[in-house]
Amino acid sequence: MTHFADRLAARVEATESVLCVGLDPRLPFPSDCHRGLRDDRSGLARAMERYCLGLIEAVEPFAAAVKPQVAFFEALGGYGLTALERVSAAAAERGLPVIADAKRGDIASTAAAYAAAWLEPRPGGEPPLADALTVNPYLGADSLEPFTAACREHGRGLYVLVRTSNPGSADVQGLETPDGPVWQSVAALVAAADTAPVAACGLSAIGAVVGLTQPAALATIRRLLPRAPLLLPGLGVQGGDPGAARAAYASHPAGALVVAARSVIEVWRGDPGDWRSAVAAAAQEHRRTTWNVASHAPA
Amino acid sequence: MTHFADRLAARVEATESVLCVGLDPRLPFPSDCHRGLRDDRSGLARAMERYCLGLIEAVEPFAAAVKPQVAFFEALGGYGLTALERVSAAAAERGLPVIADAKRGDIASTAAAYAAAWLEPRPGGEPPLADALTVNPYLGADSLEPFTAACREHGRGLYVLVRTSNPGSADVQGLETPDGPVWQSVAALVAAADTAPVAACGLSAIGAVVGLTQPAALATIRRLLPRAPLLLPGLGVQGGDPGAARAAYASHPAGALVVAARSVIEVWRGDPGDWRSAVAAAAQEHRRTTWNVASHAPA
Repeated sequence: MTHFADRLAARVEATESVLCVGLDPRLPFPSDCHRGLRDDRSGLARAMERYCLGLIEAVEPFAAAVKPQVAFFEALGGYGLTALERVSAAAAERGLPVIADAKRGDIASTAAAYAAAWLEPRPGGEPPLADALTVNPYLGADSLEPFTAACREHGRGLYVLVRTSNPGSADVQGLETPDGPVWQSVAALVAAADTAPVAACGLSAIGAVVGLTQPAALATIRRLLPRAPLLLPGLGVQGGDPGAARAAYASHPAGALVVAARSVIEVWRGDPGDWRSAVAAAAQEHRRTTWNVASHAPA
Repeated sequence: MTHFADRLAARVEATESVLCVGLDPRLPFPSDCHRGLRDDRSGLARAMERYCLGLIEAVEPFAAAVKPQVAFFEALGGYGLTALERVSAAAAERGLPVIADAKRGDIASTAAAYAAAWLEPRPGGEPPLADALTVNPYLGADSLEPFTAACREHGRGLYVLVRTSNPGSADVQGLETPDGPVWQSVAALVAAADTAPVAACGLSAIGAVVGLTQPAALATIRRLLPRAPLLLPGLGVQGGDPGAARAAYASHPAGALVVAARSVIEVWRGDPGDWRSAVAAAAQEHRRTTWNVASHAPA
């Protein structure tokens, strides 16, 4: 079994890309995705699946990874989660790492079930649903342990929310303690949870989510977590600047993936041309600007 | 549309119960649940559904609510979530409020999709999947807003994680700030988010999760959130004492539900008799001890 970070690093090198395309399938989908389907949950889930399969096909040459946002699938219940399983399998077939953006977190005995859901081989002999998972640290170290165990045993990765990209991230993450803001203590928690072996590429399997809208936090977190793969949302609509990622690059360009969602997958809206071509062009352009930062960062 | 807290209060009064039975369907299930089914995800999801339907039937006379733990269903993918939809519908048919324990949380545009998944009428005209949802506050006030909006519009309830029952809850929730521990600032966040109308019974729709293992925090949180419905996990296996709930009761016994999961639903293990009877007896006994506390608390 290969280490998550080595699979990611190989993909980053092969595609010369640190772009992670967020699959946030918001209505309206392109009209051809709905053809012949009803507007009930079953029909919408099929349309969502077609849309995401089209997105994967369009971005594949330019993306280091895809990040399905689980909420949109979950909103369609069992049909939606089945669609996500198919989308994830399609990405895996094309060699695209899947980072499930689920932000799960619970007490250890329940976290074990979430780890089984996303990071472990599934009943019936199917491979894990995702290569990596985002998790929420509010319940503390013991709540992370089942996830890090799954990473060790099954070559998976974890991205722990440390400092998120939204304005409200200040409310809890930004509270000051005698040892600095809460997010800094959470970064220390991530460092302590990182007991898995380091990959050949020099990165660990236990990473962090840091908003690109938080450049100062980003530099501190890179210092506190020198080997952690980082996931940087907040480009585009949320106002993050690709150049802000510079501080995130340490040993390897795979050390930080820059997430773009709406600015890639919704770029066809209001454009009369082919939606797949518009998405592919946006992904290519985002790859260029983000790779430019990653490949020129000091080692 | 009735207010969530009024529906809950009516149920608490009718059943003389503040017991919330946690549906955490961990393997092994009773053997008759597996009859004729395979050990793949589809078969296991059917067995899980049978188990939960049996649990609901057994505890219905004694429970104020049921709390399906979403992780166990999610571990079986689309099949599992479909099973949860059926379990939830069965509980609703029997008049049992469903508190979906999903601990969701994300930036506002994504939280809106989670709110749609759990608290809003679903595409195709189906009612909301749950009466109330547990959510994680780590992303701050703006991440709670889509959930509170759904509560206002659709008569639903919310239980925000404030101080959880596990030992690791100290790691982040217990960090000291100049204004007290982090969980105290989160309680203030919950108070600020509570802009929905108060129910006729005097309770609000926006509640909090507080571990029964945290009696000091519980008293403080009740003072900070006088109208909030509370959800108190940690009884039984986790070591919480039913008497610790005393501080939680304010205007109405529905002001705090005490959660029991393993100590009710797994009580049949190692017992050769009928599992449904054993579960019913355990629920009845838990109802007695918890109602004794709720009904004797000072108003």
